[in-house]
Amino acid sequence: MKTYRKELWFEIPTRRAFVNITSDIQDCINESGVTEGLVLVNAMHITASVFINDNESGLHHDYDIWLEKLAPHEPVSQYRHNVGEDNADAHMKRQIMGRESVVAITQGKLDFGTWEQIFYGEFDGRRKKRVLVKIIGE
Amino acid sequence: MKTYRKELWFEIPTRRAFVNITSDIQDCINESGVTEGLVLVNAMHITASVFINDNESGLHHDYDIWLEKLAPHEPVSQYRHNVGEDNADAHMKRQIMGRESVVAITQGKLDFGTWEQIFYGEFDGRRKKRVLVKIIGE
Amino acid sequence: MKTYRKELWFEIPTRRAFVNITSDIQDCINESGVTEGLVLVNAMHITASVFINDNESGLHHDYDIWLEKLAPHEPVSQYRHNVGEDNADAHMKRQIMGRESVVAITQGKLDFGTWEQIFYGEFDGRRKKRVLVKIIGE
Repeated sequence: MKTYRKELWFEIPTRRAFVNITSDIQDCINESGVTEGLVLVNAMHITASVFINDNESGLHHDYDIWLEKLAPHEPVSQYRHNVGEDNADAHMKRQIMGRESVVAITQGKLDFGTWEQIFYGEFDGRRKKRVLVKIIGE
Repeated sequence: MKTYRKELWFEIPTRRAFVNITSDIQDCINESGVTEGLVLVNAMHITASVFINDNESGLHHDYDIWLEKLAPHEPVSQYRHNVGEDNADAHMKRQIMGRESVVAITQGKLDFGTWEQIFYGEFDGRRKKRVLVKIIGE
Repeated sequence: MKTYRKELWFEIPTRRAFVNITSDIQDCINESGVTEGLVLVNAMHITASVFINDNESGLHHDYDIWLEKLAPHEPVSQYRHNVGEDNADAHMKRQIMGRESVVAITQGKLDFGTWEQIFYGEFDGRRKKRVLVKIIGE
């Protein structure tokens, strides 16, 4: 069994953003030499997500509006967790979008459907944050 | 280490549905010969889910109503992603229900609690779509 | 390849609660002897969650209020699944918080970011329930 580990680092200039990391994850698989196995990709922060969906700017706009409806940033006083911080909503948004994705590796490739792409979802940016890539297989 | 891969195909005649795939996944485990390991089951489409919950029609009705409240299909004009399509809400519903499940395999069986069953959740049907089953273990 | 399996048991005296199980999971990893691999941690019940977020009581209070807004317990008659039971909302809350987490094991440790902690989320307590820990690796 082979295992592989890498951290991807981000410093998003805005509070919220979605970043396509599909080619970074494929690069990790190539580096690992694993041709059959699983890759776990997870945010290492509790106000960020890793998720799989469409690479389409209209959709990302819709997600942003929708998440703001389900877990509004303002008023910050509505959350008890906002003590000396204003990022409580980011902990909610991240639960809806999820912390992690597990993806199959087949014949050395991300085993994805036609429209599947993997994203880093930032909900409390403007600081250095990271994603963990862990691969196991052979 | 053994690995196994299979695609399950669906063509749901309605826009939305929940399909119990528990016995299909157990069949895959049997075919794989893996007795200890993990099985990843994921939608290969970005408007569908794989999730684990109760096999009860009342619950599935409740999920349908509830998801429609959190991410309404109509009016389709509320979503920027609805350009030449009307399935933007399906991308939201799928995030709440999730893309994938990872399940333990123990002594050759899905290692489930009493009421756990695995479902394909369709939110934009009336076309051919598929689920990936990937098993690793020994 | 090594594999390991353990059940953690809970009997929460209230309907809802969040329990930090991080040290229990690390104990399982130590017992397994696995130094590189993956650990799957999942609720074995369909009205409970395993999720990763901050170990902060203000946040847990906010989650409780927020989940109650998205999937209210009352009136119980709003859910068709409430037939002889009153826990339909728990099936919704669990979908938002998630059934399972998969975590990397690196050098024998949970490979976590600074603030990541793993929780059992109970949404229909006052009875015995359990979490499955399955480890694969070497």
